[in-house]
Amino acid sequence: MSKFWNEKVKNIEAYIPGEQPKDKKYIKLNTNENPYPPSEKTMEAMRNAVNGDLKLYPDPTCSDLIKKIAEFYNADEDEVFIGNGSDEILAFSFMAFFSKDKKILFPDISYTFYKVYAELLDLNYELVKVDDNFNIPLEKFRTQNGGIVIPNPNAPTAKFIDTNNLINIVEANSENVVIIDEAYVDFGGESMVKYTKKYDNLLVVQTFSKSRSLAGLRVGFAIGNKDLIEGLNKIKNSINSYTIDRIALAGASAAIDDKEYFEITRNKIINTRIKAIARLEEMGFIVLDSKANFIFARHKEAKGEFLYKELKDYGILVRYFNKERINNYLRITIGTDEEMEILIKKLDAILKQKDN
Amino acid sequence: MSKFWNEKVKNIEAYIPGEQPKDKKYIKLNTNENPYPPSEKTMEAMRNAVNGDLKLYPDPTCSDLIKKIAEFYNADEDEVFIGNGSDEILAFSFMAFFSKDKKILFPDISYTFYKVYAELLDLNYELVKVDDNFNIPLEKFRTQNGGIVIPNPNAPTAKFIDTNNLINIVEANSENVVIIDEAYVDFGGESMVKYTKKYDNLLVVQTFSKSRSLAGLRVGFAIGNKDLIEGLNKIKNSINSYTIDRIALAGASAAIDDKEYFEITRNKIINTRIKAIARLEEMGFIVLDSKANFIFARHKEAKGEFLYKELKDYGILVRYFNKERINNYLRITIGTDEEMEILIKKLDAILKQKDN
Repeated sequence: MSKFWNEKVKNIEAYIPGEQPKDKKYIKLNTNENPYPPSEKTMEAMRNAVNGDLKLYPDPTCSDLIKKIAEFYNADEDEVFIGNGSDEILAFSFMAFFSKDKKILFPDISYTFYKVYAELLDLNYELVKVDDNFNIPLEKFRTQNGGIVIPNPNAPTAKFIDTNNLINIVEANSENVVIIDEAYVDFGGESMVKYTKKYDNLLVVQTFSKSRSLAGLRVGFAIGNKDLIEGLNKIKNSINSYTIDRIALAGASAAIDDKEYFEITRNKIINTRIKAIARLEEMGFIVLDSKANFIFARHKEAKGEFLYKELKDYGILVRYFNKERINNYLRITIGTDEEMEILIKKLDAILKQKDN
Repeated sequence: MSKFWNEKVKNIEAYIPGEQPKDKKYIKLNTNENPYPPSEKTMEAMRNAVNGDLKLYPDPTCSDLIKKIAEFYNADEDEVFIGNGSDEILAFSFMAFFSKDKKILFPDISYTFYKVYAELLDLNYELVKVDDNFNIPLEKFRTQNGGIVIPNPNAPTAKFIDTNNLINIVEANSENVVIIDEAYVDFGGESMVKYTKKYDNLLVVQTFSKSRSLAGLRVGFAIGNKDLIEGLNKIKNSINSYTIDRIALAGASAAIDDKEYFEITRNKIINTRIKAIARLEEMGFIVLDSKANFIFARHKEAKGEFLYKELKDYGILVRYFNKERINNYLRITIGTDEEMEILIKKLDAILKQKDN
């Protein structure tokens, strides 16, 4: 605590990202990264961008990258916003579209950063309680509110909501912005991007960190009505004119171009997930249905915290939340087939050892 | 204007960065970039960072880069903060240390982003009028306020304030934070970093965009008392856990290591500046004393806007502010000797043509 902190900072509880221990090399299944590296074409584009032009500011409008994304998603260029990771875009959205006088709604078991943004900005919010099966009670979102944020698939549950159900929510909230956070949508979900032309209150946020293997590059994007995009640009240009560096612009553009690699790697992850879920279920795990690059699972008998610690000792990191209702679950990122095999064998050994 | 914008966004006047026209190749002397590319060692480090690890999030604590900066500036590691450009750090500082109930002070002719931050955050501020010679009236800052922001050297004037005078201000503001924005300090100024150990209310902000030739990479840093740094981290971690990508971390670390290149290039720029000022003065320009990588100059007879437009037509970009008190001035970035020679010859031709 410092006398120089304002009231806001004194009371803030910041977001805590998944641990990144440096003591040894882990099999990292704890922060939902892609197990496959960026494509060779993407890396070549980045290496080419390492040149003398780095002395110059990047394009503050990100126009080349926006053009690629607009083409890929069949949007207009003024319907695309680029941010330093989707987290920055979410923060800017909270700054641009939500007000103190009306409540914003998001699920209680969800990405915990939403609450942090609301607290930072002194916004009223309601954590809408998911049911015992971690289903989001959609009817509670079908009223006019101050704003809605729904991740789809949800994190950490990996559960997916049909777009039809989300359209109902978007329609019922015609007077406020509905943000669908699609960080994980490419692993089997269906994107709402195609509805952004129809609904001027719908903002879809995605990222290059998951399905495009570029967590280390910090690029996210949003697609929505041009007025929403203009609002985001007004916030961005009141904080930092140049948020995306030259190499990141080049890498993200190349990643969008390389459709083949994107399809191959996301399909691999989906297949690995299907196999891993079957194996874990055989071993007595309850695994929630997943459309993401991670699964949310608990064992019928063994405690989540115990399994998390045993795995960590062995050199496998998964995410454990010491939090009511989910403190028996593990959130496990889908790695390669080989990584999942090691995980499963180790879990099997832990469970057998425990029984003896 | 959109019905989805909150009151804040409706009223915002965002910062407008220097123009980046794409119609042709310009000699770019308008956004205070370094005319020299990053060093070969820096570029090699970035090329090496283009590897499969980009699938993984970067280190959210930027610990390796912080270590390098701490060593270079003789600070402790918990006295260093890294941001996505110094603009982001300034924005976070306004969010962390200033409150609505007390006025913050900065010069009226100065970096216009300060006003944008204050407006975005609904803060009270006073633009302290610089005198007719663009001197900042230091006595006006020597009272307890809600906060102080002074760029040193100032932009766009390039004028430098002696650190002794700034220390007086820091001491007189013991109850609030004094931010010294040293984006341009390496071109002949003296840094206040060494006083951050003594004064717990002093925050010094610097950038890799100018003296380290990395405007395209987006890295800035702040040095101050660990409580101030902790406050900045609280804000950062409430907006975006990972603001600096892996390649930027590698490049910035290597740039700090390459002391020789840093010394050579900044000295070249200082020497070019001295020569350019002498030549411009011979041609009838009034040039303010500069400790930056740019100069602020007006011609005794020719109008600033006229010169700006003539130069642009010819393919040379300088910065012109159509703003009271400075609308006869040009802000000219110091380029290479060759670039300055072209500028000076062209200015000479424009002035002679005008006389005929």
